[in-house]
This record gives sequence, structure tokens and C-alpha cells, in this order.
Amino acid sequence: MGIRVAVAGASGYAGGELLRLLAGHPEFDLVAATAHSQAGTHVTAVHPQLAGLDLTLGVTDAAGLADADLVFLALPHGQSAAVAAQLPAHVKVVDLGADFRLKDAGLWQKYYGGEHAGTWTYGLPELPGQRAAIAASTRVANTGCYAATITLALAPLIASGLASPEDVVVVASSGTSGAGRSAKVNLLASEVMGDLSPYKVGAHQHVPEIKQATGATSLSMTPVLAPMPRGILATVTARFAKEGDPQKVLQEAYAGEPFIHVLPAGQWPHTAATSGSNSCHLQATVDVDSGRIIVVSALDNLGKGASGQAVQCANLMFGLPETMGLSVFGVAP
Amino acid sequence: MGIRVAVAGASGYAGGELLRLLAGHPEFDLVAATAHSQAGTHVTAVHPQLAGLDLTLGVTDAAGLADADLVFLALPHGQSAAVAAQLPAHVKVVDLGADFRLKDAGLWQKYYGGEHAGTWTYGLPELPGQRAAIAASTRVANTGCYAATITLALAPLIASGLASPEDVVVVASSGTSGAGRSAKVNLLASEVMGDLSPYKVGAHQHVPEIKQATGATSLSMTPVLAPMPRGILATVTARFAKEGDPQKVLQEAYAGEPFIHVLPAGQWPHTAATSGSNSCHLQATVDVDSGRIIVVSALDNLGKGASGQAVQCANLMFGLPETMGLSVFGVAP
Amino acid sequence: MGIRVAVAGASGYAGGELLRLLAGHPEFDLVAATAHSQAGTHVTAVHPQLAGLDLTLGVTDAAGLADADLVFLALPHGQSAAVAAQLPAHVKVVDLGADFRLKDAGLWQKYYGGEHAGTWTYGLPELPGQRAAIAASTRVANTGCYAATITLALAPLIASGLASPEDVVVVASSGTSGAGRSAKVNLLASEVMGDLSPYKVGAHQHVPEIKQATGATSLSMTPVLAPMPRGILATVTARFAKEGDPQKVLQEAYAGEPFIHVLPAGQWPHTAATSGSNSCHLQATVDVDSGRIIVVSALDNLGKGASGQAVQCANLMFGLPETMGLSVFGVAP
Amino acid sequence: MGIRVAVAGASGYAGGELLRLLAGHPEFDLVAATAHSQAGTHVTAVHPQLAGLDLTLGVTDAAGLADADLVFLALPHGQSAAVAAQLPAHVKVVDLGADFRLKDAGLWQKYYGGEHAGTWTYGLPELPGQRAAIAASTRVANTGCYAATITLALAPLIASGLASPEDVVVVASSGTSGAGRSAKVNLLASEVMGDLSPYKVGAHQHVPEIKQATGATSLSMTPVLAPMPRGILATVTARFAKEGDPQKVLQEAYAGEPFIHVLPAGQWPHTAATSGSNSCHLQATVDVDSGRIIVVSALDNLGKGASGQAVQCANLMFGLPETMGLSVFGVAP
Repeated sequence: MGIRVAVAGASGYAGGELLRLLAGHPEFDLVAATAHSQAGTHVTAVHPQLAGLDLTLGVTDAAGLADADLVFLALPHGQSAAVAAQLPAHVKVVDLGADFRLKDAGLWQKYYGGEHAGTWTYGLPELPGQRAAIAASTRVANTGCYAATITLALAPLIASGLASPEDVVVVASSGTSGAGRSAKVNLLASEVMGDLSPYKVGAHQHVPEIKQATGATSLSMTPVLAPMPRGILATVTARFAKEGDPQKVLQEAYAGEPFIHVLPAGQWPHTAATSGSNSCHLQATVDVDSGRIIVVSALDNLGKGASGQAVQCANLMFGLPETMGLSVFGVAP
Repeated sequence: MGIRVAVAGASGYAGGELLRLLAGHPEFDLVAATAHSQAGTHVTAVHPQLAGLDLTLGVTDAAGLADADLVFLALPHGQSAAVAAQLPAHVKVVDLGADFRLKDAGLWQKYYGGEHAGTWTYGLPELPGQRAAIAASTRVANTGCYAATITLALAPLIASGLASPEDVVVVASSGTSGAGRSAKVNLLASEVMGDLSPYKVGAHQHVPEIKQATGATSLSMTPVLAPMPRGILATVTARFAKEGDPQKVLQEAYAGEPFIHVLPAGQWPHTAATSGSNSCHLQATVDVDSGRIIVVSALDNLGKGASGQAVQCANLMFGLPETMGLSVFGVAP
Repeated sequence: MGIRVAVAGASGYAGGELLRLLAGHPEFDLVAATAHSQAGTHVTAVHPQLAGLDLTLGVTDAAGLADADLVFLALPHGQSAAVAAQLPAHVKVVDLGADFRLKDAGLWQKYYGGEHAGTWTYGLPELPGQRAAIAASTRVANTGCYAATITLALAPLIASGLASPEDVVVVASSGTSGAGRSAKVNLLASEVMGDLSPYKVGAHQHVPEIKQATGATSLSMTPVLAPMPRGILATVTARFAKEGDPQKVLQEAYAGEPFIHVLPAGQWPHTAATSGSNSCHLQATVDVDSGRIIVVSALDNLGKGASGQAVQCANLMFGLPETMGLSVFGVAP
Repeated sequence: MGIRVAVAGASGYAGGELLRLLAGHPEFDLVAATAHSQAGTHVTAVHPQLAGLDLTLGVTDAAGLADADLVFLALPHGQSAAVAAQLPAHVKVVDLGADFRLKDAGLWQKYYGGEHAGTWTYGLPELPGQRAAIAASTRVANTGCYAATITLALAPLIASGLASPEDVVVVASSGTSGAGRSAKVNLLASEVMGDLSPYKVGAHQHVPEIKQATGATSLSMTPVLAPMPRGILATVTARFAKEGDPQKVLQEAYAGEPFIHVLPAGQWPHTAATSGSNSCHLQATVDVDSGRIIVVSALDNLGKGASGQAVQCANLMFGLPETMGLSVFGVAP
């Protein structure tokens, strides 16, 4: 018998992707999936792509979750702490929300408001030392999708001393599933198709997480909503702190990593190639005019940016092969 | 050691999807992939979504393929026969092209032109008797993508006597990957996005295949190019030949089928739910005004419509579990 | 001084398109635009594409509208009658809703529910006799967008006796703006992009309107939501009642019509070519297998399918050139 | 009788948009449109959106163009000089290509290769002094689409001394029509839909034009291909050179400009709102973390980015009202 797994917040997009991954995972047995307004509904009425999975959504409470060995929390930001507090210590938990990512309570309050719930092990296995830390944890705070995309591009450059941590400039575009499944006019297909739309310009709440994870000391990030269901493309530019080859730094940092692909010279990451996978594609160059380092990073916001990453962390937490149940390959075109 | 597999025509979209499926298949070992103008190129330069797969495309000839136990031919229509002729009899072959689908040489000549190459076992396992026929074959002609979508909707209705084989009317819209990967102005993103465009109206070459597979005696099919990369949605309408419930007929026909999902009443198939999977979703009703049976069928043209179907057939041909290496679940949103 | 015009329901998509057309119309002076929840908002906060238009949305009531010479009602179905009842008789009104389209009160009740409000002149100028009827009316019921697309394709074929009014089969796909601007999960970009989704299969409320306008006696219509913001493509098939050339019938019916383009042989309508215009593109052929007539019709659901059509009717009602303020040409790609 | 106008290179996307605008222009009479491989074809076979326009494409040579009072050159980069050289001096010319934009012959050779053809008046009327210069010219070099988007955002900030001309960082995403109408695999709908794809990273040929037009001394620009037919969204970040309010600087720079809309505080430009129009939408803020100025700029690459801009320049060259035949309002959704 396998490891018993529950998903709280299974009616959203990250929840649906978790169910898809778990349904195909050799060791994790999906025993419960819960939701808020959709509780009582058959999962295929909410996620028609899961036709063939026989499961009814339950109510998100401790009773429905505590029986599992592993719980994924895919709840709206700010709701994980209350649920997590009710789970027994022996139940392992991966939180896909922002609640436990930040170390600095002041920054939490400034960017999210409300009481800071605490800090869990940060769920990005490719950061130095983080793989072991995750494996040793029972509570893991999964990265945000923008943070994963940008951190994978930037962290090795700053850590190696190649890039200056000052004045990093990022523009990152996300597919619409990153904005969640709530019915809002600005997320309607009529508004989004054929459109690029920036938002939260000048003050995005993920900046503190990115600075914490990368060591950047000053970073401007402009997020853009793009007319596609999945994918994030981040263009990260930084000034050189010393001479060197940014592509080489990335190659060395990620040698042997199964999910991080520094592309051959001349090939640039694009989001569709990562769709449905747990991979992140990277490429770097030096801008001929400004002399800035430019790194482009692409991943699936629901894959390596959320649910895939969460399963990868859970694999580590249970001593399973890190790639189990996850695909390196994208579904394209 | 597993079964040695080669893919001819690996640079196209069906070829790329085959490589993705084979790379994750537990028993099939991908030993060669060949192409025409792209021969000599690393596979990830052609299919960036396969980053992590180390393989160089070879030349499509007997030498590059005959060493395999199983060959998939994903070549342009009309090119399979010449390649197949050079393969030893013991090599099992699944042809994704149209060359060997039709039984009637006259119809082949009328709709495709040129010499008829012959007739192979038709690769649609869910047709009565066909599963066993495929398992016993060394040569299988995979269904066309439109034919698979429409046949799965229509065949049981005609076979059961519920629907008249006369005057079937079909409108089917396909994502652009169904049109292949050749550079044509009408397939440019600028032309396709925001657009629905019918083509080959009044005389589509897949009509004879659909009639042969379903028993329809007269059938109008209008294909439409839709602004999405994958997916076919077919609306099939037919007149009643006797009284009965079309949904029930479909449910009975496909009871126990792993990949065919007759949806619960009130839920209608839509293409995104099948994307990346080998599933086909079906629903039926009776039109209140005309009294016609309406069946809607959705699948992924590269999945159950092409490469997924081909792997399913190959599983049968080698006595493997039919679902091996294939996903029932779609990648959505 | 020009003709004073007001738009009720200006915050929706049809309302926004009306504002755009009226802002560029040489004789109509936009004096008021009203909304429900958006009353009090500047129009550019609701319709950013109208930047440069200085107008604040008012409340939808008689006081805000009665001062105009012409009122367009772009309200949700069922809300026009109450507003119209409060407008003085001398104010000319074009209703873009369904309230006054049907002649048969019983059909209204069956398909829409509630009390039938009455019947106004049907606003499709290209139907025989209708141009004069509209010019002589002070109250006009604009066509529905599906009804316009299908009626323009079908009416001349039935009227000429070429097509049988029995057993017409239609599949029509619409861009998402046809579904309105209310925040619903199934209309989210994440759900719609990459997807084709049928709805109201077997019983669409526009069927009675289409039958009334075309003379069809039995008609199956399957509507499909397509991943594009604008446009409807209808495939209309009918059986021959007598011999003849359907393309010729269409050409004769629409000779001299400025907005109806029967395309040259071999060219098929596609939606993008009509985007932003008031044109409808048509083509017809005979299916080689079934012998059915196939007509394909394309238009912009917000143009000839709604707001453009409404302006065309208003031009007639005020004795202005019918094409004034309207474009024949689409905005493509 | 109006001004006689010819379009060379009418089969491309910018050419098609020019024809659309000219067909609706009150003073410009379209007398000829020429093409290369499409010469001899009816214009509606190439641009179906122009159904209703009766015109056959001619051959691009002096004979076909010299008879006009005004010639628009919408040819591939590098082909304008040869055609322009054959036109009489009294024929006014607007070149939509890059040939005559740069002042520095060395930069031309470095970024485009080949002989530098010369320098014409730069066709961006909103730059200080440029309106009069265009009005006085018989030869005008229209801006590039990226250059227009970025220059309108950046030029006033540098000119006012607010922004440093050093270390400007730009990421700009474009719809696919900006890449032209040639049949290339990377522009196929199957590749582009659902995808964001950066290109020419680190060395884009438009950088010298942007630096020349804005006064920037060092500028990194990363272009991204976005899954939409039209529109450019540029995120421009720069460091402060002195204290001040960037939004105010933009408002003052563009007060009274009919096509440049600095949006109300809190509203951000998005591309769909400018589609089909000649407008550019702008907004600015200060990034809370990095302290950088962030300006976002949106326009239609075929409108204010190419053909609309060209008509605006031509209006000025003939002493017509600058806005004649152009729309301030976008076609949305």
C-alpha cells in the first residue's frame, strides 16, 4: 500500500494539476480532495480533463485531511495557516500558498497584510543546500510561480559573484492560470485573447520572496498577463559584478539537475516547450549595447511553478526518486 | 532489454508527440528517429519540448529503421508505402499516414490520386473485433484524426440500428497541428489567431475512410481550422432509424473502454479536457426541433487522433497492457 | 446639430462597440450612455479602447434616455421591454435584445420564459421588404448574432425554392464576446483558450428566431464557443428542393448589397476577415457525397451581428445613407 | 479630385492595413497597389478583409508608381532605396521600411549590413519639432513599430532630464503581424499559440533607431513574440537623473496630442485597447523596490506602429488635418 495523499483546494487550477500528477504517481495514493464551494461535487464536473477519475470533492477541514500521510494545500493565499494548524505533526505538508515563504514578518505584513504565520523550509530543491533541507522537513513552503522562474535564472549569477545584486530588472509574463480560477471580468477570454496587460506595476508582492531566494538587494519586477493558459517567461537583466560567462555559470550550477535545462547556445527558452512538464529552460547572453547580463527563463506556472514543484518536494520528503511521477518533457505544440 | 522502436518522420508534430510518448514508455526503447530535411539535427533543436532527450535525427531509409522491432511511420500521406516495402516482415509497423487505410482502391485514387498501396488492419481498437485484429497484425494503418473523432461518435449508433446511415451531417473543427508543420501562409499565427476558417468544403478526402469505418452510406463533412494548437471537436448529426436513447447506445458500446468516456448527462465534451491525453469524450442528445440525434466528440488530434492511438495499437501488437505509456487525463487548462 | 443618441447598457461588449461606432458617426451625436453597476464611472475605465472619449456613464432610466432622438437598448435579454415602455413615442428605438424579435408569444414563453413583450419590426435590412419596413418604423428589434449569420445564408435558398425548409442542419461557432461580459468561470481565458466547447446542444433559444426569419420548418442548430474574441462562423446544410446553383441564388439575392459579399468561387468565408466590420461573407457549394447544399457564413458578432446592424437600421430609420459610419472592411490580421 | 496614392508592397500585413485606411480616407484616392509574387492577383484574394474593394495588384516598379502624388513603400527592409530612386522628386514618399531611418551610416552597416541608402525626415510627429519637419518634407522615413512604442514612452523622460539616458532596460512583446507574412515554421500558429518566445536577445537591430530617437546612451532591449496577431507592449525602465513625477512629464509632453493617451492614474495600457487604432497608451510609475521609473507603452504595431503612423505623416505632408482617415478608438474586445 502506498502513501496516502490528500489535496486541499482541489477545485482550482493548481489543485487540478496536482490531482492529474497524483493520479499518475506510482507511490502516492490519492485518498481525498477537498474544496470550498464545490464540496460535494464529483471531481470530473469541476475538472473535466480528469474523466476516468472517480472521486467526490470533500470539505476542507482537519477531519477530511488528517487521515493522510501527506497533504498538499492549494488554498488561496492567507488560508493555509489555519488549516495547517489543525493537522497532526506526523502528517507531512506542502503548502502551495504564500503563507510560509517569507522569513521576514515585517515584509509579510507590508506586502500581504495580516499576521505572519511563520516560515517553513523553502521548496526549491535546486537552490544550494535546499534539497537536503526539504528531505529533512515535514513542512515545506512551495515557491511562487514567478519566484521559481526568476530565482532559477538569477540565484546562481548572484551566488557566483558574476552579477551585481543591485538594480536587477525583470519583466515576466504569465499565462492566465497563474491568476487563478475566480470569475473576474479582467480574466474573461474576451478581455485576454489578443491582449498583453501589465498589472501591479511598481510593487508586486512576490518581490520580497525573490530577493530572499536570490540575494538580490534591489529588484524591479513588472508582471504581464499574456494570452495563453499556461507558462511564464521571465527576462532577467543584471549588471556584471565581475567578468565571466553567464551561460557557463548556469551550466555549472545546474549540471546533473533533471528538470533544469540550460539550452545550447543560440536556442532561447519559450514557454510552450515546458507546458505540462516540470522543467525549467534557461539561456543567457550579454547585451551588446548595455553590457547587461540577460537571462531568459521559461517554465509551466502549474508545473515547475506550482504543482509539479510540490510533487518534487514531496518525493524528497518521502525519500522517493525526485523525478517520480513527473515529466521532463513538455506537451507541444 | 525492451522492445526496440524507431520513428520515421520524427520532425513533424505527430512525430514529436510519438517521441514524447515513447520516451516515457516502460517497454519501448526509442533507438532511432529519422527525418527528411532535418536529418543530422539534434532532436531538441527540432522539438525543444524534448529537452533532456539525447538523440540525433537520422535519415529515413531502410538501414536506419530495419534494426528495430517496431517502426512508426509518421510520414506525409503517400510516402509510407515505399518505406514500408523495404522493412523486413518481422518488423512490426504502425503507419500514421493514409496510405493503407482504405479497402477500395478506386476511392483511394479518387480522393488521393496515384496507385493504391494496399490495405492494412485498421487501427481503431474500440471498433468491434478490431482489438483482436490489431493484436494479430504486424502491419496496422492508424486512423486519421478526423476519422477517429467521428467514427467513435457514429459507429455504434449505426451498428445498433439506432441511426440511419443516410444523410449524416458532420461539422468538425481541428486545431492547427492537424494541418502539419509545413510553412504555409494560411497556417501562420497572424492568419489563424482570432479566426475560424473552413476548408475543403464539400469534398474532404477523409469521407471515404469515415464511411468505411462507420457504415454510413451518405455523409457530409465540413472541416474547419480553429485557433488552437491541438484538439478536434466533431458535431455529428444523424436521423433516427428506430426509437432509442443514443447516449445509452454509446455507454453500452464503450463500457469498460479505458480511453472512451461517455460523459454524465448534461456535460458536453470540449477539446481542452482531452489535450495531451489518449482519451475521447462523447455525449449525445436528441434535438428538440429537428429530431436529429446529435453526438459531440472531442479528442486530441495528436493523441487519440494520431500518436497516442498508434502507441495503443503497438501495445496491442506486442501483447502489452493497452494503456501502457498513455495518459487517460488531459493537461488542462 | 445632429441627431441626439443615447445608449442604454453601454458597459457590455455590444454597448462598447455601439459607442465606438457612434463616436465616429457623422450624424449621430452621442449624448448619453447608461449602465447598471457601472453608472457613475468614466466610460474609459470600462472601455479603455475608447480613450479620448469624454463621457461618464449614467443610470439606465427614462430620465437619462428620453431626451434623445434615438435610443439603442443593449440590455440583457428580458430587460428592454420595461425601459422601452417609459420612452416617448417620438423617440426612435433599436433594441439589441431578444425581447421584441419573435411573433409567436408561445415560442417566446417556451424558449425564454416570462411574459412576451410584443413584436417590433425585425431589423435585418437585407431580407425582402425589410429595408422599407425598418425605414418606416420607430421601433426595431435588431437580429440576434447567430440569427443574422444563419439567416443571411439560408433565407434566399428557401425563398427561392432551391433548398428544402425541412431538416436544415447548422453548426455555428462564436467568439466569446457573444456570451457577454459577465464574470463566469466557463468564460475565463484559462478555460476558453485552446478549447472548443459546445453548449445548449439540442435546444438553443435562437432557433425560433431563425425559423421565423428563414422559413425553415425544421432546423437543428449546435452552437460552439470558440477561442477568439469576435466572429461567428456558421455552416448551414440543407437538402435540395429543386435543381439549381446555390451560389448563384445567393449572388442574385444580394446583388447591390453593400455589406453582403458572396465570395468568388473557391474562396471561403472566415471570421477574421469580417472583424470590426459590418460585412457578412458567404459562399456555397454542393457536397459531393451527400448532395446537400453547404453554405458558410461569417460575420463579426459585434458588427453585423449586433451593433453595426443596429446602426445600419438606425441609419434607415432616419433616412441617412445606410452605410454611414460603418465599415465594409475588416481589421485583419 | 483627390490626391492620387499608390502602395508598393501591398500584399503584406502593413500593406493590407494601408489599403484599409486609404480606402476609408476622404482625400486620398487609392490608384495603385503593387506586389512581388502576388502581382496580377485581385486584392481580395490576398486580403479577404477588403472584400468590396475592386483592385488588382500590379508590379512594383517605377511605371506603376510614378503616376501617383503619394507613394507608400511597404517593402521588406533594404528594398525601398532602389524603388525610391526611380520616383520623380515631386512624388511624395513615405517609407515604412528601415532604409532611411538611421543618420549614422556605420550603425546601418553594423546592424543591417550593406550600403546605407541615406537619411530621410524621421516620421514621428509627436517628437519635438518633428511635426513641422514632416510637413515640410517630400520624403519621410516612418518609425519602426518597436521604435515608435519605446520612443513615445522614453523620449520625454530623457528630454526633460528626469530619466538618465544610461542603462535603460526595455522588454517589449509584439504580436505576430510584426514579423511579417512570410511562411516560416517559427511563425506557424501551432508554434505561436500558447507560447511566448524571445528572439534576437542581446542585439536587436532597432536599438540604434531607438537611441537616435530618444537620446538614450545605453539601452538593452529584449523582444518577445506573443500569441496575438497585433499589438506591442513595451515595459521601459530607467533610472532617475533628477527628482520628479514621470507621469506628469508624459502628460505635459503629450498635452493636446490626439493619438497619445497618458492614462489616468491606476490604469495601465494594454494592447487590445489600441487594436485597429492609431493611438498609443502610456502610463508611468516609480518602482517601490528599485526606485526605477517604469513606463508602459501600448500600441497597434500595424496602426501607430506602421500604417496608421504613415498615413498620419502623409496627412501632414499634404497639409490635411493630421487625424484624417485615422481612428483614435480601438476595436475591442
